[in-house]
Amino acid sequence: MKQFKQSLSLERVRQITSADVSGSPDIVLDSVSEPADATASSIIFWEQEKYFDAVSASLAGLIITTAEGAKRLPGRHILITDKPYFTLLKLVSYWLRICSTQIQHEIKSSAVIDPAAKIGSPVSIGENCVIGKDCVIGDGCRISANCIISDGSVLGENCLLYPNVTIYEDSVIGSEVIIHSGAVIGADGFGFLLMEGIQQKIPQIGNVVIGDRVEIGANSCVDRATLGSTIIGEGTKLDNMVHIAHNCVIGRHCMLCAQVGLAGSTKLGDYVYLAGQVGVAGHLKIGDRAMVGAQSGITHEIPADSKYFGSPALEAITMKRILASQKNLPDIYRFYLKHNKSNT
Amino acid sequence: MKQFKQSLSLERVRQITSADVSGSPDIVLDSVSEPADATASSIIFWEQEKYFDAVSASLAGLIITTAEGAKRLPGRHILITDKPYFTLLKLVSYWLRICSTQIQHEIKSSAVIDPAAKIGSPVSIGENCVIGKDCVIGDGCRISANCIISDGSVLGENCLLYPNVTIYEDSVIGSEVIIHSGAVIGADGFGFLLMEGIQQKIPQIGNVVIGDRVEIGANSCVDRATLGSTIIGEGTKLDNMVHIAHNCVIGRHCMLCAQVGLAGSTKLGDYVYLAGQVGVAGHLKIGDRAMVGAQSGITHEIPADSKYFGSPALEAITMKRILASQKNLPDIYRFYLKHNKSNT
Amino acid sequence: MKQFKQSLSLERVRQITSADVSGSPDIVLDSVSEPADATASSIIFWEQEKYFDAVSASLAGLIITTAEGAKRLPGRHILITDKPYFTLLKLVSYWLRICSTQIQHEIKSSAVIDPAAKIGSPVSIGENCVIGKDCVIGDGCRISANCIISDGSVLGENCLLYPNVTIYEDSVIGSEVIIHSGAVIGADGFGFLLMEGIQQKIPQIGNVVIGDRVEIGANSCVDRATLGSTIIGEGTKLDNMVHIAHNCVIGRHCMLCAQVGLAGSTKLGDYVYLAGQVGVAGHLKIGDRAMVGAQSGITHEIPADSKYFGSPALEAITMKRILASQKNLPDIYRFYLKHNKSNT
Repeated sequence: MKQFKQSLSLERVRQITSADVSGSPDIVLDSVSEPADATASSIIFWEQEKYFDAVSASLAGLIITTAEGAKRLPGRHILITDKPYFTLLKLVSYWLRICSTQIQHEIKSSAVIDPAAKIGSPVSIGENCVIGKDCVIGDGCRISANCIISDGSVLGENCLLYPNVTIYEDSVIGSEVIIHSGAVIGADGFGFLLMEGIQQKIPQIGNVVIGDRVEIGANSCVDRATLGSTIIGEGTKLDNMVHIAHNCVIGRHCMLCAQVGLAGSTKLGDYVYLAGQVGVAGHLKIGDRAMVGAQSGITHEIPADSKYFGSPALEAITMKRILASQKNLPDIYRFYLKHNKSNT
Repeated sequence: MKQFKQSLSLERVRQITSADVSGSPDIVLDSVSEPADATASSIIFWEQEKYFDAVSASLAGLIITTAEGAKRLPGRHILITDKPYFTLLKLVSYWLRICSTQIQHEIKSSAVIDPAAKIGSPVSIGENCVIGKDCVIGDGCRISANCIISDGSVLGENCLLYPNVTIYEDSVIGSEVIIHSGAVIGADGFGFLLMEGIQQKIPQIGNVVIGDRVEIGANSCVDRATLGSTIIGEGTKLDNMVHIAHNCVIGRHCMLCAQVGLAGSTKLGDYVYLAGQVGVAGHLKIGDRAMVGAQSGITHEIPADSKYFGSPALEAITMKRILASQKNLPDIYRFYLKHNKSNT
Repeated sequence: MKQFKQSLSLERVRQITSADVSGSPDIVLDSVSEPADATASSIIFWEQEKYFDAVSASLAGLIITTAEGAKRLPGRHILITDKPYFTLLKLVSYWLRICSTQIQHEIKSSAVIDPAAKIGSPVSIGENCVIGKDCVIGDGCRISANCIISDGSVLGENCLLYPNVTIYEDSVIGSEVIIHSGAVIGADGFGFLLMEGIQQKIPQIGNVVIGDRVEIGANSCVDRATLGSTIIGEGTKLDNMVHIAHNCVIGRHCMLCAQVGLAGSTKLGDYVYLAGQVGVAGHLKIGDRAMVGAQSGITHEIPADSKYFGSPALEAITMKRILASQKNLPDIYRFYLKHNKSNT
């Protein structure tokens, strides 16, 4: 159950969601819950038949459901909407926003901030953070405990870093960026040259540039460029354990699901969707709005608006046909064995 | 070599392992070792022929081997058992247990604990830990250095957190849970809705619930639920870099090997085994005791007691047949080219 | 742009690179840059036609390019070489080396070092580091903020640990090793035995041994051995999020790209190359100089000097033929359907 600091009347909920209600406008609601945990001040939602008994037995003060659903729940306070789950999430977003306390300017005494760093106000900087020389931390940033921001890195306004984030030197991070725990921004790209039997390190002297409103999942890595910048475009979202190699350039509003890996210098357009565990080879271009199925391996350029899957990936429609035929391969093989023999 | 604080006589070793021994019951043993590093007080084991010379030349005080092996090692102190490696591990488990020092109640002065947290006793809390408001840390917990436990999280008794673990708000963790370094529990699920060209964040207000005796590998991530809870059942083990998305429900005593990824809302039964790098799509149900081969991609429901592999995965027996036929595909293709031409 | 603390005259650049120059030997250069950001003291390089306009318009004081390229850039200061990018990197390596300040002996007051640890000199130990009992830190090591080095671990000389690295007990790390942020060295191997319905933990009492000049990427994990040691040979490089299971033995000068995973007890020879997201099953041997394509799944032994790809992997030449035939599988299937029917 999620308890909110501020309660809402049913009338207020109605206004926020623009939905129809049945029930007293004065009921007071203060939480969102699963059916079983709900109290008289909780909101729940109901969409799927299999949860009817749980919803019906729930003590919830308000049920968000469809007009159809409402008929099955007589005597309850109902918020009627075509998309109960979506409406609930919309309400929660609003509720979180009005409950979010104004950030208080607070720098914990255990945080170590270089005198040559420029710290905005208000900001919140947690225990044991280390902020290096010439860093700039914009107004409204919240840096949680044990984060490291190395020399020369810049954060825009209103960023949120969860605990244990590491940012290497000279990273440039936009505004309203969210970075989850364990993420590493700006580690060296993986560049070596085999010379005289030794993997010689290619210096990685570029940096990482992250656009506004990017979100980076837990334990993801964005490597710094060899020269120039590894770039993540505005509004793009990375899930957990995503790997972005040196010199990649990712467009705006892309979605990279968990455990995706991009090799070096690959370019993604805008609104590209890579499902979980996709791998993309280096130096490729993926067009705008391309969609790639889970576990696919992209080995060549992909045009805008295309759908691919498989490893190596083919156009989705082609790959589907191949997979459908593939199920019959043992039969085809037997046929071949019989006729190949009889023909020769 | 693993040196134990407490030594054991051969007689004691015999009692613990219920195995037969040849040699003086008074020999004193204090370590487990590789053959080459062994001293007169070390135990080694021998199973594979290729190690005979090393074992034979070893200074080890005791060799665990089979009755067959014993005949080849005359004049040595031997512990005879059908499964030498297994017997050694059993002995080591016992030995570690009797040597484990009673946990001393100690909270390092650099740890920052909210006054509204409830800390059991004895507990050990390492340097630079941060424990938030309303957290509960059960008796016997050992929290290593630089761990973050965020507001409202609860740990049962005798948990062991290695350094640099991050636990987000409101996580509920059972007793005797082991969490390795870099693991992140409770980060936001990856939920966005594309609206007016922007990936709008879906609030993630659920939590994570982890059962008793779960072990979570290094750098693994278990995301919090959108609503409700992401749940890991009692006794389940996660290897390194495993990704569990929001609202997954994992049964009891499952094994998820390294780099496995589950998409959102997927449900695993009990005793499910997912080999390394397996990916499971969202909103699926995997039955009890299902076994999935490495790198497989699960795209649909899998019944209990089934074996699957491949990407997309098929029943193992079907996939094996397809792969066997697939090797002949170039020959089949040549046959097709020849006969297709001649027939048209 | 990368600004160096020390500037170089064009004459000096010529000497370092052994390349031909056109332009005044007295020009002073202090940075390496992208064309657009360059100043009169910046060096840029030009190889690809598509960048001609940018290079031509650049204010750069020196352009590294080929003899052909030089003709297209009259009136500019040019360094002429067959491999412009390579020459630039060579120059940068040299430049970084001469600019690297002598390490100052400095142990931050917030670092907690066990009195029974042996710390070399000079060393640099960052904020909030924790170094355990009986650790040895060699001369010239730089341990960045928030690193944990657990009891009994040994680092050779001139190692560089980025922030938030975790090293478990009894790890042995060579000289000139680089470990990136979030890496975890020595966590427990994933070993359990199902007994009486419970996954019983197999004690992991071995350790990790890492050779000289190894580099380990961000958020990678190298697990400790059950008995004995997990070993990474001299000069081997691991990219980000690589998983090395217990008891693996990796040879010298190997390259393991991002998100590779090795199951337990697998052995790699020298100069093995595993591309991104490759998985290798346990207890296998991969021969020297073997090369494995991205996302491949290795399920059996692979000889030296071989090339494999696919999941499960086959020899590259075989797999290429299969994939080429596979595209025609829908046609082959139709042919089969027609003729199988007509024949029966």
